[in-house]
Amino acid sequence: MAYIDMSVPELTELKVQLEDEFAQFKLRDLKLNMARGKPSSEQLDLSEGMLTLFRSSSDFISEEGTDCRNYGGLEGIIEARRLMAVLLDDEPENVIVGGNSSLTLMYNAVARLYDFGARGSKPWYKYDDIKWICPVPGYDRHFAITKSFGFTNIPVPMNEDGPDMDEVEHIAASDSRVKGIWCVPKYSNPGGVTYSDEVVHRLGHLRCAAHDFRIFWDNAYAVHHLYDEPENQDHLLDIAGECKASGNPNRYIKFASTSKVTVAGAGIAAMASSPDNVAEFKERMSIATIGGDKINQLRHARFLKDAEGIAEHMSKHAEVLRPKFELVEQKLSENLGELGACSWSKPRGGYFVSFDAPYGTAKRIVQLAKQAGVVLTSAGSTWPDGEDPRDSNIRIAPSLPPIEELDEALDVFCCCVKLAYVESLLCGM
Amino acid sequence: MAYIDMSVPELTELKVQLEDEFAQFKLRDLKLNMARGKPSSEQLDLSEGMLTLFRSSSDFISEEGTDCRNYGGLEGIIEARRLMAVLLDDEPENVIVGGNSSLTLMYNAVARLYDFGARGSKPWYKYDDIKWICPVPGYDRHFAITKSFGFTNIPVPMNEDGPDMDEVEHIAASDSRVKGIWCVPKYSNPGGVTYSDEVVHRLGHLRCAAHDFRIFWDNAYAVHHLYDEPENQDHLLDIAGECKASGNPNRYIKFASTSKVTVAGAGIAAMASSPDNVAEFKERMSIATIGGDKINQLRHARFLKDAEGIAEHMSKHAEVLRPKFELVEQKLSENLGELGACSWSKPRGGYFVSFDAPYGTAKRIVQLAKQAGVVLTSAGSTWPDGEDPRDSNIRIAPSLPPIEELDEALDVFCCCVKLAYVESLLCGM
Repeated sequence: MAYIDMSVPELTELKVQLEDEFAQFKLRDLKLNMARGKPSSEQLDLSEGMLTLFRSSSDFISEEGTDCRNYGGLEGIIEARRLMAVLLDDEPENVIVGGNSSLTLMYNAVARLYDFGARGSKPWYKYDDIKWICPVPGYDRHFAITKSFGFTNIPVPMNEDGPDMDEVEHIAASDSRVKGIWCVPKYSNPGGVTYSDEVVHRLGHLRCAAHDFRIFWDNAYAVHHLYDEPENQDHLLDIAGECKASGNPNRYIKFASTSKVTVAGAGIAAMASSPDNVAEFKERMSIATIGGDKINQLRHARFLKDAEGIAEHMSKHAEVLRPKFELVEQKLSENLGELGACSWSKPRGGYFVSFDAPYGTAKRIVQLAKQAGVVLTSAGSTWPDGEDPRDSNIRIAPSLPPIEELDEALDVFCCCVKLAYVESLLCGM
Repeated sequence: MAYIDMSVPELTELKVQLEDEFAQFKLRDLKLNMARGKPSSEQLDLSEGMLTLFRSSSDFISEEGTDCRNYGGLEGIIEARRLMAVLLDDEPENVIVGGNSSLTLMYNAVARLYDFGARGSKPWYKYDDIKWICPVPGYDRHFAITKSFGFTNIPVPMNEDGPDMDEVEHIAASDSRVKGIWCVPKYSNPGGVTYSDEVVHRLGHLRCAAHDFRIFWDNAYAVHHLYDEPENQDHLLDIAGECKASGNPNRYIKFASTSKVTVAGAGIAAMASSPDNVAEFKERMSIATIGGDKINQLRHARFLKDAEGIAEHMSKHAEVLRPKFELVEQKLSENLGELGACSWSKPRGGYFVSFDAPYGTAKRIVQLAKQAGVVLTSAGSTWPDGEDPRDSNIRIAPSLPPIEELDEALDVFCCCVKLAYVESLLCGM
């Protein structure tokens, strides 16, 4: 029975039951974490062979003869560029390999635009108010970057096929201070949405008031399928082709990393863009660095090898992750399916389940869960400034805990959702 | 006999001899490089044990229990902060460990000041013209950073005990747009100078018109002695103590890296500053990264261990480098000692010999050497904008070539110096 159809006495009785159940959880002194998209130890172990790869000094020569231990190689060694081109769906010559963090590449890209503009355009610091399109729910660290430079983050709803393109088109055309959009185009964080061909096409052909508008294309989950069968995997149209076709070849910057392919803290990140943009990025980069960690690039290239090697490796991740995502789906369906007012994503890849709680209860759910020893991502964090106007969205990150702990954490979570919903219904009566 | 005392016929005859010698070098089709401060393969081999250190997944836990493979740890693991504190002459709690490049840390520090100011001060982009003090000869990549942000680099002469402090004091006090100074305070690039206690004291107590003036203290060669005996090593007063004593505790930022300790392309870099500055840096960094490569931090900490381990390791580098520096000194003395108008540094550490050629000949020397197959650092590169007003200073980098090649390259170099000098004397007559 949907809670909304219950009478006050029924709800009151249910509340007593749920409070009792909640008290039992609290007694168990749990310490569980579903907050961030961290891989589990079991997943990290899959790359043991990479971190123990080298045996002697003769191992450090790249295929082009570079001693990877020494200085040099601004854009990365060719085998690493080729490898990252797989994740970026691009050509190796358009790829620049960076350090261990794609977030840093994105931050730097924004910072360089702010300080120097794009290809001769006015530096963005010279504007009073830069605006940035933020599909929501989205990735808190994206929003934090643009916010830190004083930009106004403009939320735009995510639909099942990507951002609401009518809104995006309207906003981009309205004002030359609208300078860009954050996109996680495949298995999005947190909704697990992959942009449809039509959405990618419309993004590539966007009419922008700003000629230096930039699409930040964070393809963080490019190969992060939960299922091996191609028909159960999402496929993404290449933004580069669409931008080129529309006569705006420099409009996109793609980002990817191996943080959730090999090891989260010691992966390699990369970006790809048009030849003109790559030339400009390299010129700016040459002031700030002599080049990334080529030894780690070599480790990655030798360990993962190529597209096939990546797919095989990701299939092992999927084996670990799939049961966890299926457990989330099972637990939420069983416990919250008949409640009403709740919905959640059923992603085929990525790292998150996006949960929409009854309006006005997300903060309370996160607070209750914390009291019972389960850490969730802060309510609101999927919105710019941490402000979800409906106080509804919660990002569930099932990857880190072992499955037994996840099971327990989900029981706590479901109890908290029910209790918070009952509280809010009673309070509103 | 000094060339300046020669008659025209004598010089003309000498020129013919030198041209003949030079032609012989050209015939040998040499490919030698004394351009950049890269370690040699022999030096890189010293850290083989670090790059082949890990054997299994159980190796990746830090002493505080962190799985270094996963995300997190903005400021670095404690054993890496402790290690880098040795290079930075500071306390581990004031240390932030970054990626593989101290240059990047310096660039980022300038960029954050430009975009956001320091501790509430006006962002530097809001000034029409920022000025920066550049001791010369100095490091070209330093000057390139401040130039890239549009700052005016102001050259100040280096004396035998550091920058000319009378000039530095005058400039710093003159204008609130003078915001900082580049320093390589120990075994400086290229002169091999270590700042005297008095110079460090005066820098710490500098009266600045700008309250957000910053000393960029790039201690790149902190432990890079050529000799093991303490009495043959330079010692540097700590800038932090001097800044604190003068009531300007936030004025300095120290930088260091292991690029020339372990491996140049895959080391770890770090910075240290006051607790207030460190807190601000971490706040800004948290937007741009989840943390550095902790696996590489762990590798370094386990391999180098502590101050004693570093000293032992650097002693092995010195064994390789010392004969090269001694060869430079020997060859220059033998070939150029009686020429007049030439002088050069005799450093006890670092990576360079600073050579002052007869005025107006440096570009010609570099050009001649190139024709004979010896690549030198561009003349002028030790000055802001690459403009040495006396066209005199050349940076000699003896570390990379094997000693037999260095020997040959120095013969070519000496021939080119003589020839260029004779040419210039004849031309001026």
